[in-house]
Amino acid sequence: MTDATRTIPRVLPMPDLRDSFPGPFPASPYADDIEQHAARWLGTFPLVTSPRARSALSNITGQGMARTFPTADLDDLLLCADLFLWLTAFDDAHGEATGARDPALLVRQISESVHLLAGHEEPPTGPSVFGAALHDLLARLRQRAAPTQYLRITAHLRDNLFGILWEAHHLARPDHVTLPDYRAMRPHTVFVRTLMATAELMLGYELTEQERSLASVRELETAVADLAGWINDLASYAKETAHEGPGQLGLPMLLMREHACDLEEAFRRASRMCEQRAAVAAARIAELTARQGPLADHARAAKSIASSYAWHIHHSRYQT
Amino acid sequence: MTDATRTIPRVLPMPDLRDSFPGPFPASPYADDIEQHAARWLGTFPLVTSPRARSALSNITGQGMARTFPTADLDDLLLCADLFLWLTAFDDAHGEATGARDPALLVRQISESVHLLAGHEEPPTGPSVFGAALHDLLARLRQRAAPTQYLRITAHLRDNLFGILWEAHHLARPDHVTLPDYRAMRPHTVFVRTLMATAELMLGYELTEQERSLASVRELETAVADLAGWINDLASYAKETAHEGPGQLGLPMLLMREHACDLEEAFRRASRMCEQRAAVAAARIAELTARQGPLADHARAAKSIASSYAWHIHHSRYQT
Repeated sequence: MTDATRTIPRVLPMPDLRDSFPGPFPASPYADDIEQHAARWLGTFPLVTSPRARSALSNITGQGMARTFPTADLDDLLLCADLFLWLTAFDDAHGEATGARDPALLVRQISESVHLLAGHEEPPTGPSVFGAALHDLLARLRQRAAPTQYLRITAHLRDNLFGILWEAHHLARPDHVTLPDYRAMRPHTVFVRTLMATAELMLGYELTEQERSLASVRELETAVADLAGWINDLASYAKETAHEGPGQLGLPMLLMREHACDLEEAFRRASRMCEQRAAVAAARIAELTARQGPLADHARAAKSIASSYAWHIHHSRYQT
Repeated sequence: MTDATRTIPRVLPMPDLRDSFPGPFPASPYADDIEQHAARWLGTFPLVTSPRARSALSNITGQGMARTFPTADLDDLLLCADLFLWLTAFDDAHGEATGARDPALLVRQISESVHLLAGHEEPPTGPSVFGAALHDLLARLRQRAAPTQYLRITAHLRDNLFGILWEAHHLARPDHVTLPDYRAMRPHTVFVRTLMATAELMLGYELTEQERSLASVRELETAVADLAGWINDLASYAKETAHEGPGQLGLPMLLMREHACDLEEAFRRASRMCEQRAAVAAARIAELTARQGPLADHARAAKSIASSYAWHIHHSRYQT
């Protein structure tokens, strides 16, 4: 723990999401199964070296995924959990401060994944541990998903990797990042749109292209995407700044710069922004749930996804 | 023209592809229409500032696309031509030496496209000229393509942008690039797999997932992908090295390093590699054409795509 952490006041305002997402958040009965499976999968594919970090990551993924899709089947939950383990572990191992130190190395590490995502199974050299794990994930995904689902999810995975790359290039130079840029890229680094894309596979519905492009659906997805990234920023602020290196590229820093305000005021503004986005999401969820069919399924998925982000910020992974 | 260009011997061995792709290469009767449309489209979206470069790019795209898909409809050809204009102009404007000088800026320029490709039409700020042009392209693509076609093509576009980023990070440090790495990434920077993905839209066929994963189909696609990148490397060697900056990341340089040989020997080896890949492609084309249906359509598409790459290396764009 560094001095930077200790100087963070304990009274920073946090968003109150209880009006929009009151809880309690239902959890799948498989929460512990997912957690145990995650720990085993990380034994097969050692993406995380520290036993403590492995255990924390298995726990947040298992318990989080159980809240993200409380009604999904066990096999689907295990696949989705491993996918998110992979993304999180990749970001922890190669992204953030590590990626910022050598962006070209990060590009090479990502290139292996791009090759696999493009469906070229002839990896030119032996795969890395992340390559081997991704190969396993994509084979399982191909088995379970319809072609459009597979294509959508793998497109989002590419965007997540690009987001990790984008962040690594700007951690040390956040002055190049505008608030609108940040808003556009942040959903990719928090993986929230990937979760929304997996929902159709996990819960067995499919939106038509027309439904997908409805203004209310797009507004719902954008509100949940904003909310997920921003509350994660607030929750992880202490963790991020406790690490070596810059690592402060996030909503609080951008708001401090934009409004020439102090940290507490930035947290107050950010909290209000979160509450507003949560209210928009809740209104669209209510509206779409009333329409029944796939739109209602999608709205319920967005609700549990948003709830899982609201839940996960209290996890010990975000306590320094 | 620099000294580096003048010292390149004129007798460098080039591949002889006549056995595998004998020509003459049939061309669409719409070649001139495509070229004129391309010039107009570049008037609407000024992606290229120099009139001379604009004219050369319209010409190679129009005449090249006419050879890539000689039997396609005019509207499809115009869309595909604009797509490739866009990719080429983006690479020329932001990639290569320019991207190598400021990779973080290139990342930000790409992030706008990633946002649009992900289907988020609410661009946070006013679009750049490349953003506006891509928006136009994606709207036209969405109208003409089935959802799976749209998803496949936009996935390839993401890979092309990643390839441009990969190249920019390694132009100045090609020592970090192995020959297998290069072979994996080069198809993305020459856009050849994107062309193969557009073939199904252009020619009105669709492979089943099972057909797509046949060993013969994969071998054909990989052979054409290798061939396209490698012959482009040989043809553009003089042009690339005539530019300021490094810009020599390509097959000749990698073979010189791998085999500790001179440029002429590297060109001889590269030419042999091209001829071998062309022979593999031709054999698979013959085999799949005999199977009729979508597999034969796909084989014919691969043949005309490979032919267009064999044709385009003699274009004046590649003469310094």
